[in-house]
Amino acid sequence: MNETLQKPLRKGEQTRAAILEAALLLASREGLEGLTIGVLAERMGMSKSGVFAHFGSREDLQIGVLRLYHQQFEQEVFYPSLREPRGLPRLESLFARWVARVSMEIASGCIYISGAAEYDDRPGAIREQLLEMVRLWQVALNKAAKQAMQEGHLSPDTDTDQLVFEMYGLVLALHHDARFIKRPGSVERAKKGFERLIFGLQDETSSPSSKQVEKSSSKKISKSL
Amino acid sequence: MNETLQKPLRKGEQTRAAILEAALLLASREGLEGLTIGVLAERMGMSKSGVFAHFGSREDLQIGVLRLYHQQFEQEVFYPSLREPRGLPRLESLFARWVARVSMEIASGCIYISGAAEYDDRPGAIREQLLEMVRLWQVALNKAAKQAMQEGHLSPDTDTDQLVFEMYGLVLALHHDARFIKRPGSVERAKKGFERLIFGLQDETSSPSSKQVEKSSSKKISKSL
Repeated sequence: MNETLQKPLRKGEQTRAAILEAALLLASREGLEGLTIGVLAERMGMSKSGVFAHFGSREDLQIGVLRLYHQQFEQEVFYPSLREPRGLPRLESLFARWVARVSMEIASGCIYISGAAEYDDRPGAIREQLLEMVRLWQVALNKAAKQAMQEGHLSPDTDTDQLVFEMYGLVLALHHDARFIKRPGSVERAKKGFERLIFGLQDETSSPSSKQVEKSSSKKISKSL
Repeated sequence: MNETLQKPLRKGEQTRAAILEAALLLASREGLEGLTIGVLAERMGMSKSGVFAHFGSREDLQIGVLRLYHQQFEQEVFYPSLREPRGLPRLESLFARWVARVSMEIASGCIYISGAAEYDDRPGAIREQLLEMVRLWQVALNKAAKQAMQEGHLSPDTDTDQLVFEMYGLVLALHHDARFIKRPGSVERAKKGFERLIFGLQDETSSPSSKQVEKSSSKKISKSL
């Protein structure tokens, strides 16, 4: 009896998840604004009302796509980095995994970055959702940078807001050059920029040997990408 | 007789210029894809066929808008910087004027940056035109950086492609944070990032006094923004 009751629910959840996956693919290519229930239904071989049965409105669907993207981002970039030691190793892992993800997304485009351009002057629920996610990510980077400072891996007078701003700039430049200009070597440029950035923020009062360790740790992680 | 012949021509050119100005304003807000002859005609209080008389197609109009933007960019950013001495002062002026222009455009959006996101996966004549302009601008920055190296203002082993990549990243981060996140202080962050970037590339073999001069020159120009 229980099994019979659960089966349709499970199937409904599977369908919903499949619609979301297809919608994410479509939104990555066409932008969130290019995501329409009509095109999506066609891709899925479903009727429009079939899609509407799972998402009450186009906006619900767009927000569902954003949440799925955020979930994937957390699973690929954020959580694995928490397994690295607090401080510079964790910060480096966050950056390296972020760059790896963006460079995998070059063909389709990163929803956080493309979405920021798409919604920068379009107020509403989607912009708010996107903004919250980008802010959360910047807060996570900032926290890791502060921990690197507390651990003595970065100079105690490090301006972590500035560091996050510049890290973001490197990833935006990677996205811009690789996707718009289609220039090779942009991933290497982003990594080199980050190494230089971190090197400049290492505490001058720390012993040369500890600086050496930190520097080589930065090199190792960027090579393992 | 000549006057009579010239007058209609001059009026036609004036109308064309006025249409382009209105189109640029519209494209800055709605994106180049949001630029339609219908909306533009309405804004201008003209008929659609009146607009078509000046631009054969929507694409012609979009390319005209890009050329006008490029012209304005050159006049505000590029040419005034050529009056600065070759080397670091010129490179600093290019960056400072670029940042000033982007920060003035926060309400509407920079067409080079918003356009890159809009056309990164949309092949065609508009993408090609935009790409050529962005490339020209990056070549100009690269040339100024190479001159700064030749003048001994930057270390002889400076990777100027890397420098331009990072300068671009700072301006992209400014555009992103100020326009999407609406975070104050982003202009200061971009300037601070550039100062740090240049400071790190100054020749270690140059005498401390000359390094001091260059450093203060960098500070002065960024303050005069």
